[in-house]
Amino acid sequence: MSDEQELGITESKEHNPGDWYAEVVQKAELADYAPMGGFIVTRPRGYALWEAIQDNLDTWFKRTGVDNAYFPLFIPESYLEREKDIVEGFDPEVAWVTHGGHDELEERLAVRPTSESIIAPYMSQWVRSHRDLPLRVNQWNSVVRWEATETKPFFRTKEFLWQEGHTAHATDESAWAETTLRLDQYQRLYEDVLGMPVLRGRKPDHDKFPGADTTTTVEALMPDGKSVQGGTSHHLGQSFADAFDITFSDEDENDRTAFTTSWGLSWRAIGALVMSHSDDQGLVLPPTVAPKQVVIVPIWQEDTREDVLQYCSEVAAELEAQGVRVHLDDRDERNPGFKFNEWELKGVPVRFEIGPNEVEDEEVTVVHRPDGESSLEDRADITAAVHDHMDEVYDKLYEANAQRLDENVREASSREEILGTIGQHGGYVKAPWCGDVDCEAEIKEQIHAEIVLVPLAEDSAARAASEFEDEHLPEPDHEGEDCAVCGETAEQTAFFAKSY
Amino acid sequence: MSDEQELGITESKEHNPGDWYAEVVQKAELADYAPMGGFIVTRPRGYALWEAIQDNLDTWFKRTGVDNAYFPLFIPESYLEREKDIVEGFDPEVAWVTHGGHDELEERLAVRPTSESIIAPYMSQWVRSHRDLPLRVNQWNSVVRWEATETKPFFRTKEFLWQEGHTAHATDESAWAETTLRLDQYQRLYEDVLGMPVLRGRKPDHDKFPGADTTTTVEALMPDGKSVQGGTSHHLGQSFADAFDITFSDEDENDRTAFTTSWGLSWRAIGALVMSHSDDQGLVLPPTVAPKQVVIVPIWQEDTREDVLQYCSEVAAELEAQGVRVHLDDRDERNPGFKFNEWELKGVPVRFEIGPNEVEDEEVTVVHRPDGESSLEDRADITAAVHDHMDEVYDKLYEANAQRLDENVREASSREEILGTIGQHGGYVKAPWCGDVDCEAEIKEQIHAEIVLVPLAEDSAARAASEFEDEHLPEPDHEGEDCAVCGETAEQTAFFAKSY
Ligand SMILES: [Zn+2]
Ligand SMILES: [Zn+2]
Repeated sequence: MSDEQELGITESKEHNPGDWYAEVVQKAELADYAPMGGFIVTRPRGYALWEAIQDNLDTWFKRTGVDNAYFPLFIPESYLEREKDIVEGFDPEVAWVTHGGHDELEERLAVRPTSESIIAPYMSQWVRSHRDLPLRVNQWNSVVRWEATETKPFFRTKEFLWQEGHTAHATDESAWAETTLRLDQYQRLYEDVLGMPVLRGRKPDHDKFPGADTTTTVEALMPDGKSVQGGTSHHLGQSFADAFDITFSDEDENDRTAFTTSWGLSWRAIGALVMSHSDDQGLVLPPTVAPKQVVIVPIWQEDTREDVLQYCSEVAAELEAQGVRVHLDDRDERNPGFKFNEWELKGVPVRFEIGPNEVEDEEVTVVHRPDGESSLEDRADITAAVHDHMDEVYDKLYEANAQRLDENVREASSREEILGTIGQHGGYVKAPWCGDVDCEAEIKEQIHAEIVLVPLAEDSAARAASEFEDEHLPEPDHEGEDCAVCGETAEQTAFFAKSY
Repeated sequence: MSDEQELGITESKEHNPGDWYAEVVQKAELADYAPMGGFIVTRPRGYALWEAIQDNLDTWFKRTGVDNAYFPLFIPESYLEREKDIVEGFDPEVAWVTHGGHDELEERLAVRPTSESIIAPYMSQWVRSHRDLPLRVNQWNSVVRWEATETKPFFRTKEFLWQEGHTAHATDESAWAETTLRLDQYQRLYEDVLGMPVLRGRKPDHDKFPGADTTTTVEALMPDGKSVQGGTSHHLGQSFADAFDITFSDEDENDRTAFTTSWGLSWRAIGALVMSHSDDQGLVLPPTVAPKQVVIVPIWQEDTREDVLQYCSEVAAELEAQGVRVHLDDRDERNPGFKFNEWELKGVPVRFEIGPNEVEDEEVTVVHRPDGESSLEDRADITAAVHDHMDEVYDKLYEANAQRLDENVREASSREEILGTIGQHGGYVKAPWCGDVDCEAEIKEQIHAEIVLVPLAEDSAARAASEFEDEHLPEPDHEGEDCAVCGETAEQTAFFAKSY
């Protein structure tokens, strides 16, 4: 096997998506496997993607009243048990700290699987009056869930990075507005930053976050036809506030119980990003989050070397001064073809090729990573042009994903049709549903598909009122039709899909 | 006790600094105690200080070639043992995860106390050629050290937030340049951002980081006369590279062993910041890091309310548009005196008082938090004026600390003088020292003072060559004099102090 083949991607995205994904993640230097199963090492190129996600969300959160905080890594067992008492079905698989130094602890400490049970008691202390509401805190941290599955970087790991937001409100309406505001921000992240349209809705009741009134979700369709839960925002109603005594005195000095929410988005967004856009040449990234947006590859012979490199340096300096994240690959020991392959593998969205012809004609050859489209631009206009090219690359990625999503939402009105359509095409199948978990169970048993979302009533209303077709708001429900599985009266529309 | 007294600080900084500090941290809403001893909950006002520190350091790190990454929270016991084999005296008190879910783990996992032992093996994989060097990664995370001491928020906690940088280099010189570059950045953080001059130097050999060639440190003097280790940067030489096989092929294709460094700064910087500047009215912060830099307190009667509030809103909007972090406290239910006290307690550096007189005269009364100094400024010039006032507040804080430091570095030439001077004044005592740990032990036993630093040779040279007296570079050493403790020939100057 030649050196270049070893460096390149050897697996096929279409025929072997699992191995292909693992290979892209490792060869593009996003992550390595840790010595313990279920853990990964996030390398600088991978972590930079997380930083880009953080920068965007954190700015939006802060503009909308959220402060960051930091709660302990550990939660005493008795605190988790308290949550278990409130929330039926809450039995987290967690990592337990039993010893500190050489001594056994009196009480075991759970490594946080999520922080509701340690945050809620403090919210209870901090909230006294209606003037303290809404109270909004967020933390960027890592959580650990001891689920034994095969490791898939960013998708399935025992430890993962995420943010968890926790809020308390005086009214149900305020808590619901918070829930949907954060869902909107997650949707915006996917659509405006990550180049991926998503479907939005709520989870069926049997799949809500334990203790939640409503769990809302954004779902992204992967090229292999499976859905990824891209972020969830929970309206917790009063269950946590009741249990942890989060009460306040209202304007008339009456004691009232607050309403709470929580919402989280994890590094799974990186996994969805990588899987959605990348190809058999390696990583593909939108310029919005790419650590380097432009790579300049000089092409020279000995007699043109100095002129070409000088020209390239000036172009690089100009772009950098304009805030473009640019890298000039001036390595002597590699030829241009090697460099093209390497930066394609590593996902730089735009490539400049500059040789003696470009220097002489005062031009730049600009190549788009996703499709190799090549064009000549005047050197004099290069800064303006590069922004246009980056926008074009973003649009190409978004459009490809939007088209895939549009083509992969299908209707079904019977059990056989659900099974057959998902079996043949993957993607989402919309069907009228009675609301009974048993009607999902049948589908789940046979093809491991489940109901990944149900449209939000207000989104359905908005869509019905809208003239725009491509809003990716799930369509009005099938209320009153017959459940596709059992034939009873349908209460809503279910979106079935296989899921990560 | 009246409402206002309960809200305010009741302990004295001078007479009861420990309780005073704890009270300021809680009442200024920086942190609360967690249910488990040794852990704290960092509230938004406290976390914002950490974010300000992060923003500054992270920008400087990235400009100087550092990328962020993320390594696992857990380290297998066998990996830690490997470090134990290399490094004499390495026996970390750590939290041990023994169970995942309902099952006992085959190998115990340590919650990271620091990450050398998990990062070094990956550096070994990533470094192949001299072209891969220097390799620099940093992570912002939390670490856990199971040391049983009384909890002191930000100073002594079992879990703390920090950054840990890890680098590999082709040469000893490059590694040493890295070590001092990071020390410079830590010094800059304290002096240019946190308003605190620091002393810089290296730890005596017996107090180095286990395995390090040299541990460098910046030390900040607290008002109670104790020194705080504000950040450390370690030149690790080849000990870790030898043990973890971090080798590279040089330009002649010869295999060589790399040199490594590590460097860290923790949230102890927040503790030092709070303790240095604050007073019996509460928190004092420099405007550089204060979450709110200016608070506007309107002062009105019923007939002037509308005019005063309108004027205040316009001032607030103007400052905000200019990037000043400003809060208009327009609460109806609180009087101005209450608001003054509250914002003094919470450490807003500059207060605007605006009543009917200010409105009529088109002026603003500006009050400095640290000393209550009050002045009138023209409304028309307020944006320029507020920047001057923030600079003045910063300078006042820095100067007060610089003066304290200058007054509290004393000379001693005998054991009795060391003991007596520290006993009476606290602060630093410089004395000629033979280099023997036993000579520190005697001082340590009697008054719990230790050698917190020894001047760096290059800093001594720089100071000798410098015309500036206030550079806070420790002075030239006492080489050739007699050790103040044992009378043997002195090799260096030791700075003795009590230490946090
Ligand atoms: Zn049914
Ligand atoms: Zn001695």
